[in-house]
Amino acid sequence: MIQKGWLGRDVISILDFTRDDLETLFETAEQMKKMLTEGRVPRLLEGRIIALAFFEPSTRTRLSFETAAKRLGAETIGFAGEEATSLAKGENLADTIRMLDGYADAIVIRHRYEGSALYAAEVAEKPVINAGDGRQHHPTQAMLDLYTVKELFGTIDGLVYGVLGDLRFGRAASSFILALTLYRPRKLYLVSPPLLRARPEVKARLEEAGVAYEEVERLEDVLGELDVLYVTRIQRERFPDPREYEKVRGSYRVTRELLEKAAKPELRVLHPLPRVDEITANVDTTPYAAYFLQARNGVPVRMALLSLILGAEV
Amino acid sequence: MIQKGWLGRDVISILDFTRDDLETLFETAEQMKKMLTEGRVPRLLEGRIIALAFFEPSTRTRLSFETAAKRLGAETIGFAGEEATSLAKGENLADTIRMLDGYADAIVIRHRYEGSALYAAEVAEKPVINAGDGRQHHPTQAMLDLYTVKELFGTIDGLVYGVLGDLRFGRAASSFILALTLYRPRKLYLVSPPLLRARPEVKARLEEAGVAYEEVERLEDVLGELDVLYVTRIQRERFPDPREYEKVRGSYRVTRELLEKAAKPELRVLHPLPRVDEITANVDTTPYAAYFLQARNGVPVRMALLSLILGAEV
Amino acid sequence: MIQKGWLGRDVISILDFTRDDLETLFETAEQMKKMLTEGRVPRLLEGRIIALAFFEPSTRTRLSFETAAKRLGAETIGFAGEEATSLAKGENLADTIRMLDGYADAIVIRHRYEGSALYAAEVAEKPVINAGDGRQHHPTQAMLDLYTVKELFGTIDGLVYGVLGDLRFGRAASSFILALTLYRPRKLYLVSPPLLRARPEVKARLEEAGVAYEEVERLEDVLGELDVLYVTRIQRERFPDPREYEKVRGSYRVTRELLEKAAKPELRVLHPLPRVDEITANVDTTPYAAYFLQARNGVPVRMALLSLILGAEV
Repeated sequence: MIQKGWLGRDVISILDFTRDDLETLFETAEQMKKMLTEGRVPRLLEGRIIALAFFEPSTRTRLSFETAAKRLGAETIGFAGEEATSLAKGENLADTIRMLDGYADAIVIRHRYEGSALYAAEVAEKPVINAGDGRQHHPTQAMLDLYTVKELFGTIDGLVYGVLGDLRFGRAASSFILALTLYRPRKLYLVSPPLLRARPEVKARLEEAGVAYEEVERLEDVLGELDVLYVTRIQRERFPDPREYEKVRGSYRVTRELLEKAAKPELRVLHPLPRVDEITANVDTTPYAAYFLQARNGVPVRMALLSLILGAEV
Repeated sequence: MIQKGWLGRDVISILDFTRDDLETLFETAEQMKKMLTEGRVPRLLEGRIIALAFFEPSTRTRLSFETAAKRLGAETIGFAGEEATSLAKGENLADTIRMLDGYADAIVIRHRYEGSALYAAEVAEKPVINAGDGRQHHPTQAMLDLYTVKELFGTIDGLVYGVLGDLRFGRAASSFILALTLYRPRKLYLVSPPLLRARPEVKARLEEAGVAYEEVERLEDVLGELDVLYVTRIQRERFPDPREYEKVRGSYRVTRELLEKAAKPELRVLHPLPRVDEITANVDTTPYAAYFLQARNGVPVRMALLSLILGAEV
Repeated sequence: MIQKGWLGRDVISILDFTRDDLETLFETAEQMKKMLTEGRVPRLLEGRIIALAFFEPSTRTRLSFETAAKRLGAETIGFAGEEATSLAKGENLADTIRMLDGYADAIVIRHRYEGSALYAAEVAEKPVINAGDGRQHHPTQAMLDLYTVKELFGTIDGLVYGVLGDLRFGRAASSFILALTLYRPRKLYLVSPPLLRARPEVKARLEEAGVAYEEVERLEDVLGELDVLYVTRIQRERFPDPREYEKVRGSYRVTRELLEKAAKPELRVLHPLPRVDEITANVDTTPYAAYFLQARNGVPVRMALLSLILGAEV
């Protein structure tokens, strides 16, 4: 059945969606995942074209949208990397979006500036999907993160979450925190160095939603309580003094030794990837590691999203 | 019915085509546009592969060919941008074309050097389509420009045209002027600074075809007479002395104020896009603006072209 | 019939295959070539996705894999060039491969480091195909080279081969030499300057296989005996002293004049392409030239490979 509330919808922020919306998405994603596993995916979007406008590079998110579209028989057009840079210098964003709006059936956009996706949605007649803009919004990442939590625990409510790393500039972390305001986490720990704490507007939203949260500096202090640890990268460049970075980096690195010493056996570690060294490779083969599952979930969740928005019957 | 005159044909210059050829193209394009609007495009080119050899960057033309191919179920392969540059440095053009000729069913080429498309057509057995080479030829742009005029006015003959901007180095402008020699415009104004006037060979062709044309320096002098104003960009770098550019730039910028003051209500403004500031954004929402329609027409016109050349029955 | 020995197989080195394996591959390739010629290729791989992970640039190999996949109805995702470079700097190879393993049904990898493809195959669950890594292995190139010899001579055994050029660093030449150890060449001449002779491990393998080979410095000395001349490029940068290069370059350039003077009429010249000036353009139109045929054979051979590995019934 075509989901009317979803048809033609823009995806700008995770906060545009209700729990019911996400429930529909997750059910559809589950069907997609089943069909992928069984190797029999119907060509629901044959003849459709998805524009991928990546003004900022992103291999993982881009390829996952591309895979999602192509698994369903759709085609993609677009640009990324160098080409996008030169585009960004010349033509204004509105004209570029109008071009894609004339060619494609939906537009996926990534852009470094906050608000670009919303602006694109205002210009375009076709649905626009934000694949990350500015420092806060990456709604499809949050969708697949929540889907993965639900797959692992059977629920998103009632769990203790820790979000670790750069909560100030990292859009995946912000989106995940905002997404939790749609649910009832038992407790949320925001673990970061003081310089990289979550932005006031994000914390205001947590308060408004009544989410019990606490800001802490050291993972060790809370690790034993967590059901879900969402790790993100801390970039050395964020620190005015590199020695400051060297001092803190150890506190934000997740190792097998640390987990085995201090975490609950049920703990699951998420990461939007790519990672550099914030999760050591020896975690990969432990039951804690859920980030590869999470990465693979990008495809069925984005397949579900595209088919709901484009009105394809599953 | 397969159009025999079109099957396997190279597209090098707009002057290779007759009015009858273009009539067939426009009728096919109209069918394509209808099918696009109704969302039921048959996969006429399924299994076919179109090579896109963009030795010079072009997002708009490239994506429009790619969309046209994919809407009809064809696939594309190829290169653009940086990669093309490094290719251009190493292997000779003939070997690169032979490679694509061995892989694909048709080759779309853009290249900075005049004559590249013709040379490629001599090397390749498969049809070659010029997506812009050198300073004069961009035949598929001219096709969609003419198609748009016809869609707007019901005819291409009998209208008063102004072509504005860089008529010396701009290949879209030259191709449009040359294309008009296949028709009977009532009058053609070539509006440019003296340095950027149309090339002698283009004017010779106008004379040969008996097109009444006049070269003028200021748009204001002729704007009131025009049915169609074709705007192109003037690059500052064309002027040996930047102060010269500053002096003239105002005369070549099309604004809402100017149009409302001096143009006929029926005037329609075309532009091959991308634009920088030669048409101000406040024109976009006036009835004068036809350039977004024109850009969208790139897809059905190129769909028609590909299906005629590859012998697909509509 | 699905070829069980091929299903899900990694393709790392040509030496992983037996003559029987290659016989199956060549028969399948012949069917593919017939279907391509007749313009009726079944969509055997519809719904499948092939990841193209080109960490090192390669237009020809990449586009030939892409064409092979798309001719059979499969889709491709991936990266190449600049983007690949920045990837190579950040994320580790294993994580990148895991990402592609989660998205696609097979992974084609090119990488400058020896052993990358094998490492990727260890990380990935899906089949991995080496599209060239390090200095020795380019198995799919060797496959199409052998297929071309067989098409030209009806056999690979019993012929006299010359392999010319950079036998030390050139992976296409090394792979071809290694491939010949699976067959019974009558004689194999390794023609190169002393600095660029074949590596010890390659020669050890020739000896082990009982292939009669000889290292020579001048093509002229052996040209008259050859049935097959496999030419590869010598890069000026390989010589510590450029004057050394200038001295030898003439001995390694294949011209029409040389061939007409000294070669047997049955000689056929192969080259993995791209070439710069090691075969002059006047050879192209002689019966000696088999390198364009060889290049075109990349598509049916890779179509055969993909369909065997992915278990598609021809």
